[in-house]
This record gives sequence, structure tokens and C-alpha cells, in this order.
Amino acid sequence: MSTKRALDLRLYVVLDPAIAGGRSVVEIARQTIAGGVTMLQLRDKRSPDRNILDAATAIAQLCRAASIPFIVNDRVDIAWASGADGVHLGHDDLPPAAARRLLGDDAIIGMSAGNLTELAAALPALPDYLGVGPMYATHTKRDAGAPVGPAMIRTLREAAPTIPLVGIGGITAENAAAVLAAGAAGIAVVSAVVAARDVEAATRALRCL
Amino acid sequence: MSTKRALDLRLYVVLDPAIAGGRSVVEIARQTIAGGVTMLQLRDKRSPDRNILDAATAIAQLCRAASIPFIVNDRVDIAWASGADGVHLGHDDLPPAAARRLLGDDAIIGMSAGNLTELAAALPALPDYLGVGPMYATHTKRDAGAPVGPAMIRTLREAAPTIPLVGIGGITAENAAAVLAAGAAGIAVVSAVVAARDVEAATRALRCL
Repeated sequence: MSTKRALDLRLYVVLDPAIAGGRSVVEIARQTIAGGVTMLQLRDKRSPDRNILDAATAIAQLCRAASIPFIVNDRVDIAWASGADGVHLGHDDLPPAAARRLLGDDAIIGMSAGNLTELAAALPALPDYLGVGPMYATHTKRDAGAPVGPAMIRTLREAAPTIPLVGIGGITAENAAAVLAAGAAGIAVVSAVVAARDVEAATRALRCL
Repeated sequence: MSTKRALDLRLYVVLDPAIAGGRSVVEIARQTIAGGVTMLQLRDKRSPDRNILDAATAIAQLCRAASIPFIVNDRVDIAWASGADGVHLGHDDLPPAAARRLLGDDAIIGMSAGNLTELAAALPALPDYLGVGPMYATHTKRDAGAPVGPAMIRTLREAAPTIPLVGIGGITAENAAAVLAAGAAGIAVVSAVVAARDVEAATRALRCL
């Protein structure tokens, strides 16, 4: 577990093997790092645990060498065993307090909030950032609900000015500027990078907005 | 995490909510304890993690009060956070070494072996017991494969005399004796208890074989 540092959330890529077109998420991670990604997450809801751990361990090593924080979605045990920097926890996942007990006080705990009610529910856990979305229509996450738009970034930011917010959901090079303009600390993307033919170029294009 | 003790594997009930007919696995756990179960496992491959953790935490408390070991299937983080005594790990789950690092040397690590090849693969991890099966045809676990029968207990016992073996898969009050006669330290059952109308009575019937 690396020491907690100020998070650079500008371009947070969520590695989901389900949309990687059969390509290795480890190789995609390498390409995003070459393209200037500032934070990575592994979100794998299908593979056997052993395979997720192997991928997470490899990505954690790449990220450590590049000084980029690496987060595992949902699975506190895999975050711990892989040497990741933290976890992103949904409302149905293990409670953040349990994750912090296991991963240590320096662990990065990310959570999600799509409205003020969810913001209020998440804040007591002192998350290191909140993913806010879906910003736009997305096909990557079926249970994502209706788009809340960049306006929700502004609403949540006014309610909780100190917690970094990351827009997620349907973000592309075309619509990312509106998310940042609304006050997001960064954008989180899945298919815009992971499903791109040229991952490094797609990353660079989003990174240089 | 409780101190490791000699395992009493005589009647190991696997609590699977998928076959509990809508009843609470915590309540079923309570009834098995009343019926004389000697070890319990929570195997929940469907519920949200938060719900699994809540059930595991409640069952761990019941088991601690009754001095019965409690094992969580697959999920090392949930075992850890719930205060369970260990985990049962399949071949696709986190490696036993990672589980021991997290849960401590006193944790009970169970694994599965259906033949000599799997026995040889499991032994280096020094499992505290091996589940051997399926003994008989089972509908509870779809990927269980063809029955290996009590003869496999005898075969594995000759190959590894010191590791406790537990027969699992399709075991009922009618066929359990053959499993024990083959040299098993105990029997593990799922539907014979969890799907029973009277859980406590079903447990007692199997416990007194």
C-alpha cells in the first residue's frame, strides 16, 4: 500500500475486460499509462477471482512504477492481495469502514453518488473521491440509470465543496469539457478508452483536453 | 479470528441461500446449531456483498457462542470482515497463501479435491481439510461433475493419510454411512439440511449417524 498523496483525478480510466474486445487489461493499462492516464481502476465482474487477482497484481506493478494510483472495484480482498492503492465501493459492497480497517488508513476509498441523497449517504465514510454519474447515456453499465448531466457535478460540489468529484458515464472527447467546466476534478472513462482501437491515442486525446 | 483447534468435521453444513426457500440463512444456522452441527459454511454466490457480510457476521457470532468453526466460501474479505474462522477456496479463488497472509496462520483453509491430481495440486497449500466430491449425484452445484463415490475418499486417504477429508455432494441420511465407512472425517451437506422443512430435525438425523 503506497502512501496517500494528493489524487490526480484528471483522467481516470476504468479497465473493464467485458468491453476490451478480448484484449488483455494489463496491456491496455500499459497503453493508458503511455498515453498519460492519471489513475486506473480494474472493474471485472465476471472473471474467476484468481484471474482478477493476477491482472490486478500486474496492473498494480505497472502503476507503482509509473506513480499512478491503482484502484480495484468492489473487491477488498483482491485490492489487498494485489497491492492496489485502494478500492471503489458501491452501496452494495463491503462497507468503507471495513475496507479501511483491512487496507489501512492510507488506502484510497472511492464511492459513487448520483444525487444529493447518495452524497449524504457517502460522506460519513470520508471517501477520497466520488464518482458522479452517469453524466451521459452509457451502455457500459446497464444499471447506471438515467443521465444526471454535468449539472449534478455543480449541485454536489456546492453541497460538499471539499470532496473531489469525478464525472463518469458516457464521457467522450467531445463532451468531457462540460464535465470539467462544471467543477469536476476529472473525468472517468470506460469505453472511450478501453474499447478504442488505439488505446494510447484515445487516452492522450482525453488527457490533453 | 479464533485460535485454531482440532476440527470436528463430522457434520459440516453448507448454508446456501439459493436453496433455502426464501428463509434466512442466519435462522437456518441457528437451527443447525440446535441440531448439533459441528461446522458451518456460508456459500452465497448471488447476494450483494453487503448482505453476505451481514449474514456472515451474524452467523459468525452464533458460531462463536456455540464454539463451532465458521467458514466463508470464496470470499477472503468477507471472511475477514465478518470474523469468520476461515475460508473454503476453489481452484479459481484467491490463492490459499494470500488468504493465510490476510486471515492469519490460525485461519482454517478448506479446499476441494475430486481426484488425485487435484489432491496433489491442493496439498502444497497445507489445507486444513479437503472437501471430496461429488460423492453422489447433486443438483445443488451445477458444475460439480460426475459423482466420484466414497471410493475416492479411500483413494485420497491412502495418498494423503494425515489430511482430513470431508465427503460432499448428494449426501443424505441414507447414503452418508458409506462415506464415513470409506474413511471420511465427516460429511458436508447442503440441501439435505438447508432445503429441509425441519432444519433442526434434519441436522440431528445426520449428526447421529
